[in-house]
Amino acid sequence: MTEGHIHVRGARLHNLRSVTLDVPRDRIVAFTGISGSGKSSLAFGTIYAEAQRRYLESLAPYVRRLLHQMEDPNVEAVTGVPPAVALKQQRSAPSSRSTVGTVTALSNTLRMLMSRAGEGNVHGLDSDAFSPNTPEGACPRCEGQGVVYAATEDSMVPDPGLSIEDGAVASWPGAWQGKNLRDILRTLGHDVGKPWRELPEAEREWILFTDDKPVVTVQPEREAHRIQRPYQGTYTSARNLLLKSFAEAKNQARKDRLAAFLTVGACPLCGGKRLRPEALAVTFAGRDIAELAALPLTELKRVMTPREGAAGVLIADILERVAVLEGLGLGYLSAGRAAPTLSGGELQRLRLAAQLRAGLFGVVYVLDEPSAGMHPADAEALIGVLRRLKDSGNTVYVVEHDLDVVRAADWVVDIGPGAGERGGRVLYGGPVAGLSEVAESVTGRFLASPPVVPDREPRKPVGTLELRGLRRNNLRGLDVDVPLGVLCAVTGVSGAGKTSLLEEIAEAAADMARVVRVDQRPLGRTPRSNLATYTGLFDTVRSLFAGTPDAKAAGFTASRFSFNVPGGRCETCKGEGYLEVELLFLPTAYTPCPDCGGRRYNDATLAVRYRDASIAEVLGLTVEAATEFLDGVPAALRPLRTLGDVGLGYLRLGQPATELSGGEAQRVKLAAELQRAAKGALYLLDEPTTGLHPADAEVLARQLESLVDAGGSVVAAEHDPAFVAACDHVIDLGPGGGDEGGRLVAEGTPGEIAASPGSRTGPYLRTRGR
Amino acid sequence: MTEGHIHVRGARLHNLRSVTLDVPRDRIVAFTGISGSGKSSLAFGTIYAEAQRRYLESLAPYVRRLLHQMEDPNVEAVTGVPPAVALKQQRSAPSSRSTVGTVTALSNTLRMLMSRAGEGNVHGLDSDAFSPNTPEGACPRCEGQGVVYAATEDSMVPDPGLSIEDGAVASWPGAWQGKNLRDILRTLGHDVGKPWRELPEAEREWILFTDDKPVVTVQPEREAHRIQRPYQGTYTSARNLLLKSFAEAKNQARKDRLAAFLTVGACPLCGGKRLRPEALAVTFAGRDIAELAALPLTELKRVMTPREGAAGVLIADILERVAVLEGLGLGYLSAGRAAPTLSGGELQRLRLAAQLRAGLFGVVYVLDEPSAGMHPADAEALIGVLRRLKDSGNTVYVVEHDLDVVRAADWVVDIGPGAGERGGRVLYGGPVAGLSEVAESVTGRFLASPPVVPDREPRKPVGTLELRGLRRNNLRGLDVDVPLGVLCAVTGVSGAGKTSLLEEIAEAAADMARVVRVDQRPLGRTPRSNLATYTGLFDTVRSLFAGTPDAKAAGFTASRFSFNVPGGRCETCKGEGYLEVELLFLPTAYTPCPDCGGRRYNDATLAVRYRDASIAEVLGLTVEAATEFLDGVPAALRPLRTLGDVGLGYLRLGQPATELSGGEAQRVKLAAELQRAAKGALYLLDEPTTGLHPADAEVLARQLESLVDAGGSVVAAEHDPAFVAACDHVIDLGPGGGDEGGRLVAEGTPGEIAASPGSRTGPYLRTRGR
Ligand SMILES: Nc1ncnc2c1ncn2[C@@H]1O[C@H](COP(=O)(O)OP(=O)(O)O)[C@@H](O)[C@H]1O
Ligand SMILES: Nc1ncnc2c1ncn2[C@@H]1O[C@H](COP(=O)(O)OP(=O)(O)O)[C@@H](O)[C@H]1O
Ligand SMILES: Nc1ncnc2c1ncn2[C@@H]1O[C@H](COP(=O)(O)OP(=O)(O)O)[C@@H](O)[C@H]1O
Ligand SMILES: Nc1ncnc2c1ncn2[C@@H]1O[C@H](COP(=O)(O)OP(=O)(O)O)[C@@H](O)[C@H]1O
Ligand SMILES: [Zn+2]
Ligand SMILES: [Zn+2]
Ligand SMILES: [Zn+2]
Ligand SMILES: [Zn+2]
Repeated sequence: MTEGHIHVRGARLHNLRSVTLDVPRDRIVAFTGISGSGKSSLAFGTIYAEAQRRYLESLAPYVRRLLHQMEDPNVEAVTGVPPAVALKQQRSAPSSRSTVGTVTALSNTLRMLMSRAGEGNVHGLDSDAFSPNTPEGACPRCEGQGVVYAATEDSMVPDPGLSIEDGAVASWPGAWQGKNLRDILRTLGHDVGKPWRELPEAEREWILFTDDKPVVTVQPEREAHRIQRPYQGTYTSARNLLLKSFAEAKNQARKDRLAAFLTVGACPLCGGKRLRPEALAVTFAGRDIAELAALPLTELKRVMTPREGAAGVLIADILERVAVLEGLGLGYLSAGRAAPTLSGGELQRLRLAAQLRAGLFGVVYVLDEPSAGMHPADAEALIGVLRRLKDSGNTVYVVEHDLDVVRAADWVVDIGPGAGERGGRVLYGGPVAGLSEVAESVTGRFLASPPVVPDREPRKPVGTLELRGLRRNNLRGLDVDVPLGVLCAVTGVSGAGKTSLLEEIAEAAADMARVVRVDQRPLGRTPRSNLATYTGLFDTVRSLFAGTPDAKAAGFTASRFSFNVPGGRCETCKGEGYLEVELLFLPTAYTPCPDCGGRRYNDATLAVRYRDASIAEVLGLTVEAATEFLDGVPAALRPLRTLGDVGLGYLRLGQPATELSGGEAQRVKLAAELQRAAKGALYLLDEPTTGLHPADAEVLARQLESLVDAGGSVVAAEHDPAFVAACDHVIDLGPGGGDEGGRLVAEGTPGEIAASPGSRTGPYLRTRGR
Repeated sequence: MTEGHIHVRGARLHNLRSVTLDVPRDRIVAFTGISGSGKSSLAFGTIYAEAQRRYLESLAPYVRRLLHQMEDPNVEAVTGVPPAVALKQQRSAPSSRSTVGTVTALSNTLRMLMSRAGEGNVHGLDSDAFSPNTPEGACPRCEGQGVVYAATEDSMVPDPGLSIEDGAVASWPGAWQGKNLRDILRTLGHDVGKPWRELPEAEREWILFTDDKPVVTVQPEREAHRIQRPYQGTYTSARNLLLKSFAEAKNQARKDRLAAFLTVGACPLCGGKRLRPEALAVTFAGRDIAELAALPLTELKRVMTPREGAAGVLIADILERVAVLEGLGLGYLSAGRAAPTLSGGELQRLRLAAQLRAGLFGVVYVLDEPSAGMHPADAEALIGVLRRLKDSGNTVYVVEHDLDVVRAADWVVDIGPGAGERGGRVLYGGPVAGLSEVAESVTGRFLASPPVVPDREPRKPVGTLELRGLRRNNLRGLDVDVPLGVLCAVTGVSGAGKTSLLEEIAEAAADMARVVRVDQRPLGRTPRSNLATYTGLFDTVRSLFAGTPDAKAAGFTASRFSFNVPGGRCETCKGEGYLEVELLFLPTAYTPCPDCGGRRYNDATLAVRYRDASIAEVLGLTVEAATEFLDGVPAALRPLRTLGDVGLGYLRLGQPATELSGGEAQRVKLAAELQRAAKGALYLLDEPTTGLHPADAEVLARQLESLVDAGGSVVAAEHDPAFVAACDHVIDLGPGGGDEGGRLVAEGTPGEIAASPGSRTGPYLRTRGR
């Protein structure tokens, strides 16, 4: 064993073939290999998971029993591994309250700055008073929400043609309480049978808005056969009832239901800024904190002029943080931008920048393609950040496809040679220079000689979508011609407006063509959705099982073979195969179902066999193995073959949709589209090469060309120069991100862009063909 | 800044005086200084807390906002600090289900051994089947509890003189359901007015135990003025009702209430062994797993003979773990021993041993006096364990008083020179050898020349407590004479039976003398109890405030100045000064109360001043400062002076009881006793020097002598040779721990013990005086 290394012995997770290797500590190490080769299984599933498990166990001994079940039977030993921190490309949960400012800790510093150096802080407000999430800071009118809800006649009585009896007051609760209110109103002398709009205005006003609470003896009128006793009833106006229920609603579903009877508008007191007036009266450089948080970071930097003293320290802190974020190509974001509106790549880079200030020492950082979504122009800065983390005493492992980042690593571990069962071996571990010598390694080949774009004439467009005066996010009146019947790339630095343009194209083209968005969003939000269910393959498979003699004898229909409904599934885990272990503030852990051992079905169902395999075993097959197994079943072979064509032969049929990476999900969608490829369809893709090895990117490009050849049009926002160079047309946006972007910098064939002096994309195309 | 060090800049926590120092990584570092000097504030409060906070923040970014409030304003910077693991001397929570076996992971290995190599495993049981905490393993009769509850006539009808109407069936629920059952029985023709014991046996039997569930139409008899309608009622026997409620009880309080109507006994099926018969039928070396878990570890080792194959690997694992535990003087424990019955020191050493196998790399271990409760003979092994942790790539920091452990460290950081405000400076940081040169350092002085025991004649006993045939834990018929009117030490290795003997003495002497136990148990379980409340000082202080003109004008009585009742206290935090932040699986975090800022009182109360201080400010005074502040108030000075005498002048009056260390709590109790020292009282102490610097131990010994001089008797279980040498008489138990202890090895003056060949304590006394 070598000193200064993490030693992995006999790692067998997923497709890893008893991998034994030493990976250096205190270095930047790139893990490479084509998609599905096993990079993540090694870097995240084995090294990170093992480091994490050990440290957590030692931290809180009482967690050990829970985690014990997770102890990894998939690796013999991992030694010399320090505690680890993972940064993944996960999007923020839609409900998350975090923002660019909270993720980067900029918000905190801004608040301290307002408190200590703001003008007009006559009340001596502390930094908490500048946060809408504290009682001190929240606007008293909207409680820091920025919006206020109001109950109006229109919102509570959507159909004034109805009588009270027929449910005119839609916001009333149902069941007994609604009847009660109606009975009280009748007792009070109101006509509950007349259409609402015919009641006198004063009467309508009183019913909806009074603050009186009259008590009356009600003689209920209900179903004849039930005993009806008089009772004392109290009337509460519809508005008061609704606002009270809304304020007290315990869960989001109920809040949403009640909100439907309310109008919503910007808070009149804070104007949507969520803070109390005293806090908004405080300014710095002429702006209140909400205005500062709305500035793009690049602008924020401009208004922060260095100075001496305590405020100077805070300003220096802000300037330093912003400089790092700008370097990573994120200067177009504002501190107030909500995390759920960010892409996974943007969020990862924000977190990465925050780590520079976290002051960790001696840990292993494991990163998931930090270059995702980044323009090649920003790679330099990314590498700088990785080096700083290393220089502060840490180890940096990156799963990466970007060859510039790989070249900058101290060491590379290449996995392969293929995907799934054809991968899982370590082809090389050593300094980057040595990798190109490894004949078997696809990565080595690409490192040695960048792919040459086949020298063919760009296709000629068959038509043009002329878009004029586009306005969305940072597009401010953009005019652009989108060529049809060709492969078109939209380029530009992160934040240039590529995604915004795709959205405009989607809307503009909606009427004239079938618009197909092939994005990286998850296929489904629950692990119950998987490759087989998404592609419809599972219906075919279940019919096959239902058709076996065993199933017929037992009276099992196709639904018996679903794990989503009771019957055939294991009821202990409700067909999920595992049970959840909730660890508050830590990632949720899973343990295999003790009853079915992860097989999802009950024994009677598993006893039915088709071609000698149980339904659970079929779900365990890779696409490739299934292609062989289902030989002679055309309905199954069609989807399986297209999945193989997009390079997903290594995926398992039962692989939950939630476990697929963004890139994999995009290719599954692409496969589905390839099956029904239609002339005239317009395909829109957002960074399709994210997560793809250059070799996989080539396969993808070929698939997209086949869509064009079948008469379709493809527009893809993309950073990868090799991909862009292979397109027929390029629309280059920029020149910068955010306010400095959104304009057309250049357009034409890749060759024309390469020659364009103003384009930041041009230089990266110059070394390529065409 | 030096390489390879943790850099602490400007640490100001508690009494630390802006401490700036570099502490080496990858070394064993001892933090020394007298009690209250600031060792823990530096090692735990600053270095560990900072390491922990950073890593957790990076691990789970969404915890950051919560933890942010905890960000330490008490230190300018800590850099180069790897993630840390703390091992503290906390006792296990009384409700904890863990055992010696689970803490050390021995249980798991034992279960695997039974599963793979047990004889009679005809059912092929897996390792889970040998755990009473799994459905596979739990005895089906008692559900793995080891005890069964039964409902008997006696348990359900405690007073058979009552009639059913008067509540004979005490186990019945109250309110409506009880009346319902009574009404049903009357409807069924039973006499509910007759005393229970006069009902025929068959009738009583049916009412309590039938499995029938008859349904009858009940005409209720209740208060005359309420409408009574007939209804259909179902009878369920008292036993069935009780057992069902018991099984379904959601919380412990309810379970306890119901258990009062049940009898409890060992489970007849498993005999209390908690496992199902199939599991108990499997044996290894002729014993079932429960029997193996009951053996002292030293015995367990003997029955595990090394062999080849898979079982051999498991046996080797057990032997290796047990060897470490034996080395740490814990061989007398059994794997099945419940964690809550262990001392804090024993538990820390178990956890320490487990860490040897946890495989952590590159972390900082911070330990709290790992030698606590250890016989000097075991110090060697402890040092060995610390070295192994270091050799596996970790940093080891120990807060230690034991000079042998300190001498074995690579580096020592000495804090002082005094306690509290007279401490908090780093007197020395460097190799141990250099410390004795530091004139200011008390530790240095003790390292240079071990204390010489003043050469005086041992006192002669004024009487003898003759104890014969003692039986408790490992005492099996011990005969011993305990001298009275002297300072007597009970010695022996850990597990020798010292505590057991103290307990016997307490019982035997209960009738003849006032027995005072001065132990290390916490003064109180809630942070509402503090030094001032415990010593009664707070009553005096509150009267002083109530007597001020301000208080009189406002009509404030003494109770207004209590933070335990509404009135004067801050209601946001209910007088606690902070709010809890629950982090499941992580230690609970606290945040200062946003309203009172930790001052515990509301503004009106704080406005009242006595000698120009508010009540909150008085609670913030150290004992020493309070002695000056309350000059001329005899009722306050008496307790304050005795606290100072036992070396606690540095504690703050408001310091919560839960924050005091075991040693401090013991000294607070001692101070209380010193105030009422009575002739003829017998004082029993368990390891009073734990947590004490040798200099503090000397002060303590002088206090104990003063109790003897006042006519009392002192018996102290103790390991510290310096303390033992200063006693008049020694009772040495042993020779080993557990089954190998419990016998009288030697008795006499320290000099006589030193000369005794069989005693393991003797050699440590030889180098001392007397
Ligand atoms: N949770 C999982 N369960 C089963 N197989 C998996 C799982 N995750 C990944 N795999 C499979 O393991 C192989 C390697 O995957 P992965 O390590 O994610 O590759 P890479 O990171 O190189 O793209 C693939 O065949 C993949 O389908
Ligand atoms: N949901 C949104 N809310 C606010 N601003 C947004 C949103 N989406 C994008 N923007 C802003 O619009 C600009 C262009 O973003 P986008 O179209 O996503 O660029 P690209 O796809 O080139 O990275 C950026 O300044 C970005 O911050
Ligand atoms: N939670 C606390 N709040 C306020 N003061 C404290 C707290 N804990 C300890 N102190 C004080 O800080 C000083 C140093 O204590 P500590 O670091 O525990 O000393 P040591 O570990 O050397 O015995 C003492 O004066 C003690 O009373
Ligand atoms: N509550 C208990 N339950 C079971 N065994 C105990 C308990 N307390 C002590 N013992 C056992 O009795 C023996 C003597 O223990 P103890 O009197 O605590 O020794 P010492 O005080 O010398 O360390 C040890 O074998 C110990 O494990
Ligand atoms: Zn508002
Ligand atoms: Zn299951
Ligand atoms: Zn039992
Ligand atoms: Zn408070």
